[in-house]
Amino acid sequence: MVFRRKPRIVATSTVAGAKECEGVIGRYVETALADDMFGEDTYEKAECKMLSHVIDGAISNGGRKREEIDMIVSGDLLNQIISASFAARDFSVPFLGVYGACSTMAESLAVAAAFIDGGYCRHIVAATGSHFASAERQYRYPLELGTTRPPQSQWTVTGAGAALVSSAGEGVAIASATLGKVVDFGVTDVNNMGAAMAPAAADTILTHFRATGEDPAAYDLIVTGDLGALGSRILKDLTWEKGLDVSHNHVDCGEIVYNVLEDEFQGGSGAGCSAVVLNAYLYKKLMEGSLKRILFVATGALLSTVSSGQGESIPCIAHAVVLER
Amino acid sequence: MVFRRKPRIVATSTVAGAKECEGVIGRYVETALADDMFGEDTYEKAECKMLSHVIDGAISNGGRKREEIDMIVSGDLLNQIISASFAARDFSVPFLGVYGACSTMAESLAVAAAFIDGGYCRHIVAATGSHFASAERQYRYPLELGTTRPPQSQWTVTGAGAALVSSAGEGVAIASATLGKVVDFGVTDVNNMGAAMAPAAADTILTHFRATGEDPAAYDLIVTGDLGALGSRILKDLTWEKGLDVSHNHVDCGEIVYNVLEDEFQGGSGAGCSAVVLNAYLYKKLMEGSLKRILFVATGALLSTVSSGQGESIPCIAHAVVLER
Repeated sequence: MVFRRKPRIVATSTVAGAKECEGVIGRYVETALADDMFGEDTYEKAECKMLSHVIDGAISNGGRKREEIDMIVSGDLLNQIISASFAARDFSVPFLGVYGACSTMAESLAVAAAFIDGGYCRHIVAATGSHFASAERQYRYPLELGTTRPPQSQWTVTGAGAALVSSAGEGVAIASATLGKVVDFGVTDVNNMGAAMAPAAADTILTHFRATGEDPAAYDLIVTGDLGALGSRILKDLTWEKGLDVSHNHVDCGEIVYNVLEDEFQGGSGAGCSAVVLNAYLYKKLMEGSLKRILFVATGALLSTVSSGQGESIPCIAHAVVLER
Repeated sequence: MVFRRKPRIVATSTVAGAKECEGVIGRYVETALADDMFGEDTYEKAECKMLSHVIDGAISNGGRKREEIDMIVSGDLLNQIISASFAARDFSVPFLGVYGACSTMAESLAVAAAFIDGGYCRHIVAATGSHFASAERQYRYPLELGTTRPPQSQWTVTGAGAALVSSAGEGVAIASATLGKVVDFGVTDVNNMGAAMAPAAADTILTHFRATGEDPAAYDLIVTGDLGALGSRILKDLTWEKGLDVSHNHVDCGEIVYNVLEDEFQGGSGAGCSAVVLNAYLYKKLMEGSLKRILFVATGALLSTVSSGQGESIPCIAHAVVLER
């Protein structure tokens, strides 16, 4: 999908937890939380508050008022995307709920760009986030159990990011988007999301380059969402096998979000991972001009505890957007 | 959002369970299931198979091949919308996951219409569904418990519906859409979805008529998704209080989906409710010309068991699309 009028991200806002803010990306985050509970009494409410906070932040950073916003496009990892729905309740703005697991940042940006480029809206906020503790207890084990993490696992980022996409103004243009297909290579290890998601990322990236006829060198960076260290290696292998070498300019948000990988093993994950890295770090680099053109490919694993419990493998998806200054 | 090129629904497909097919709408359903398990060994897999079945049905009823389809827009009620994601896995087609609970049919139609009208796609399948047994055990109690149902409750429809939306061809035009805001009147009774959702339906309907300046008489029918009998009465009161009388042409899919309301109490509910009624019954009446113009307003309750368990009230949403022959 090519957006001829080039809808643009005119402002962003980010929030992240204490652990995330110690990392490389941390210094670019707008609101650094000293306490991951964000003053709330449950993890889920804290996650919702983060999302509400960045939606509000993107609107005010863009110099807009709530009543000027035509739509909020958002989703998250919790059952029935309660963080996004409850955050949208705080705003009297039309809400489009999306679900793409950790691919939500790219999915919501693509939808926002299409609605603006098509002339239906002028200002849309695209947002997502995740919380380590709410994700752990919903998808894996309650933290209180102190379960040992396997080495192929990743660490869900506590953080949220929002982008105000507008039809005009100074910003980072969303030039085009490639929506992904659901890809399932039969991985059933719910602790190895990188391996499950890498084939989806490869499929979308290969489709994108086939459709555009471009060379990877046309991008300063090809940024995946949260494949982690292992998933990134698999992605490079899979694309290389198909004759596309992305090794020179590929980077994964999950690999760079933390300072040194210790208990995070393969790196960061979660919808908040790519949302924070894009809206804090990459957006700033694009606005400064040190990055001119990037392919942002957020990846999502579309499993649930029920599907895994019923013996299903993990279907995954990746959506890509071209961002340029 | 006004769609100037009038993207149109050129084909539909529906499937419904044995109980649903005994009802008034049943005789219009394309595939009537004798067994609600649809040959699968879990309710969730049966729900997914229904969705896959109607997506396939809409494509072939429209005389298209899978490779001609640009996108599937779908969502459902299960955690992480596994029915939609796993159904999309069967098709090698870009997938846009949405979540709007029981408002999904209208939400997916609005998104499909915008993507086609904007010129980004030519053929999109919009689909959703629900299954009584999977919804009961996820949102309420396992069926095996035999829990008594309160009189204000509704019965989740076992069924799915899909619409093939195209840029050209004979069909029912999607003329415009009004995306809803998240509305919460503080209802906390998870058995009374009609009361929770009616304010959201009222808000979207009032917004729609305020924006268009139309009179309710401009529509043959104003169709809500699954408010049920009680919710429909509340909707009529709420709109009447604001000076809009919809009582002459309002009908609710939940009220008409079953033959005589017995153990369903307030009527049908679930994403499959409005999906089946629209794609089976209403689509046929529009194509025949006995209905010329309808306002289709699907309603959704955006709660989760976690949000209710944490004492939250039920935020709701309603999305509207104008369908005309």
